[in-house]
Amino acid sequence: MPYAKSAAVPIRDGRFLIVGGASLVGSASAELMLREGAREVTIIDSFYQGSREAIAHLAGDERLKVVEGDVLRLPHLLAAVGGVDAVLHLAAVMSLTMDRDPWLGLSVNILGTQNVIEACCAAGVRKLVLASSTAAYGYGTGIVGDLVEGTPFHSAGAPPAAVLYGASKIVGEQLCRDAYLKRGLHYLALRYATVYGERQHYRAANALYIVESHDRVRRGLPAQVIGDGAETKHFVHVSDVARANLAALSADATDAALNISGPAPITTLELVRLVTELAGSSLDPEHIAPDPRKVRLTSGGPWRLDHAAAERIIGWRPEVGMREGIRRLLAWRGVGPSGSDAIDTA
Amino acid sequence: MPYAKSAAVPIRDGRFLIVGGASLVGSASAELMLREGAREVTIIDSFYQGSREAIAHLAGDERLKVVEGDVLRLPHLLAAVGGVDAVLHLAAVMSLTMDRDPWLGLSVNILGTQNVIEACCAAGVRKLVLASSTAAYGYGTGIVGDLVEGTPFHSAGAPPAAVLYGASKIVGEQLCRDAYLKRGLHYLALRYATVYGERQHYRAANALYIVESHDRVRRGLPAQVIGDGAETKHFVHVSDVARANLAALSADATDAALNISGPAPITTLELVRLVTELAGSSLDPEHIAPDPRKVRLTSGGPWRLDHAAAERIIGWRPEVGMREGIRRLLAWRGVGPSGSDAIDTA
Repeated sequence: MPYAKSAAVPIRDGRFLIVGGASLVGSASAELMLREGAREVTIIDSFYQGSREAIAHLAGDERLKVVEGDVLRLPHLLAAVGGVDAVLHLAAVMSLTMDRDPWLGLSVNILGTQNVIEACCAAGVRKLVLASSTAAYGYGTGIVGDLVEGTPFHSAGAPPAAVLYGASKIVGEQLCRDAYLKRGLHYLALRYATVYGERQHYRAANALYIVESHDRVRRGLPAQVIGDGAETKHFVHVSDVARANLAALSADATDAALNISGPAPITTLELVRLVTELAGSSLDPEHIAPDPRKVRLTSGGPWRLDHAAAERIIGWRPEVGMREGIRRLLAWRGVGPSGSDAIDTA
Repeated sequence: MPYAKSAAVPIRDGRFLIVGGASLVGSASAELMLREGAREVTIIDSFYQGSREAIAHLAGDERLKVVEGDVLRLPHLLAAVGGVDAVLHLAAVMSLTMDRDPWLGLSVNILGTQNVIEACCAAGVRKLVLASSTAAYGYGTGIVGDLVEGTPFHSAGAPPAAVLYGASKIVGEQLCRDAYLKRGLHYLALRYATVYGERQHYRAANALYIVESHDRVRRGLPAQVIGDGAETKHFVHVSDVARANLAALSADATDAALNISGPAPITTLELVRLVTELAGSSLDPEHIAPDPRKVRLTSGGPWRLDHAAAERIIGWRPEVGMREGIRRLLAWRGVGPSGSDAIDTA
């Protein structure tokens, strides 16, 4: 196999393509690449989910190029990938879109990833970093305890869209493995926990807890939590995800999937209380029944996404805890009626 | 949701479409449908993997219609599905083809299934029976013990093609669930163990043990087994699979995945010895090293595919044990140099 000698692509002086880059994770990753001395960063995005606003703060840096293109159209990717050292592939739909339109979702997440791989191989790209997900462990009653990279995929008791989303991430990872084994394309798949942070959008089922709670508190309403709020969520701040992406690109490691999660999980009740507190409100959260029309990402008990392998293999670990991360997100959104004095900098 | 009142489609006087029907399972299922009084059986097949020979024995029955069509082309399916009561969807590629061409494999297994679902919904088909697979539990070190319908999907230690194949089956099942929940399409997914029997082809990684062993023994050579031969395989005879398909169609059950497996698993060494004996040879099998170029479907220890749920939910259980099943397969192939007296009718 014609493997590239090293799987390490240093950020300094490197040329990078970010597929689906006009996004929460893409904009933070592009910003960090530019700050760390990348020679060229190209963002390709269809702007179906991505937005110009998400990357507006990067305008003016002449090393940044933004092109409109669709992950489902291989020629678009081929036109963007020429001369690139490494690709960060973020384009995907999540479970809410998968629920609305499974055909679109499977096409984007599976054929889209296949297209990115073909473009990488055609252009001799040295490394691909794939945005995978904690969804590779599935959802439902089987999700409990420590989730490590060898944990199987659970689907019992989970809604179709969640299972389809998780399965599409597994397929994406395996397409990368296949390309590595047969064509020598170095890759790392990063299984992100729920990403949150500045430039947070409204599309991620789990992250909605944060922004929707904040929206209610700003209107003077109590935040809402489904049921008793004991359900575990595990988040990771977008700045930690950007660091993980760069660590994965510049590490010599290849052919692995790694969990990328924040320091510790949180229950939905704790989360909603934290958002309430940091937004300067003292209203007790309101417990509500689940909306049967909404996809819920359920589990079987307390769980956490173990990130020890990422520390061992790419030298990464998370730095931003939930309190600090939510503080930053709320500061970016504007804290709300009670003003900036509500920000807790602890 | 406009659910059909009953999910039961009786075979007698029923009109059925078998997608991917010019096949091992398709031909046996069509034959049984005709025998049980179906009014009309249409086989649609692209003849990419299917063959005219597989259904030649059914020619002459005027209730059987054979059309050439591609599961990737929705118009072909729409043209074939009109007036049909229920659909049996068998068109898929298996792990060997998935290894050669993942793009084709994922398209056929995922978009193909989506197309079949769209055709069923468009034509008001009352029930869809989907050929799923034991691959929905995955492969590798996690596969050990009893596999029941709630067992998660394992991939650690498995080759990409095997994981992709399994994931594509999970996706197919979930697309059916999604169509049931949103559009009222009744369905059952049958997770076949490795199917073997008369009209056996050379495409199934596991079933190759039987036909390749037989081929060697017929040439006077010892059968070959990889390693010590302790690895478990679980087969199901094609006549039992055909019965399961008809039981699934005519049962009132809907929205479930059910294991369809033979009476008991077998080790590869026992299997190869059985083929050798039934082919009239007394040569000891030869132990060989695995061919690294071939996809191997591995497990972590002894396992079995539990079929209790199928008995409970659709009243089916397997009737043909390995000795009888291999006897029938070898008789169909022609026993070999030592003649028909080698057939053990026990």
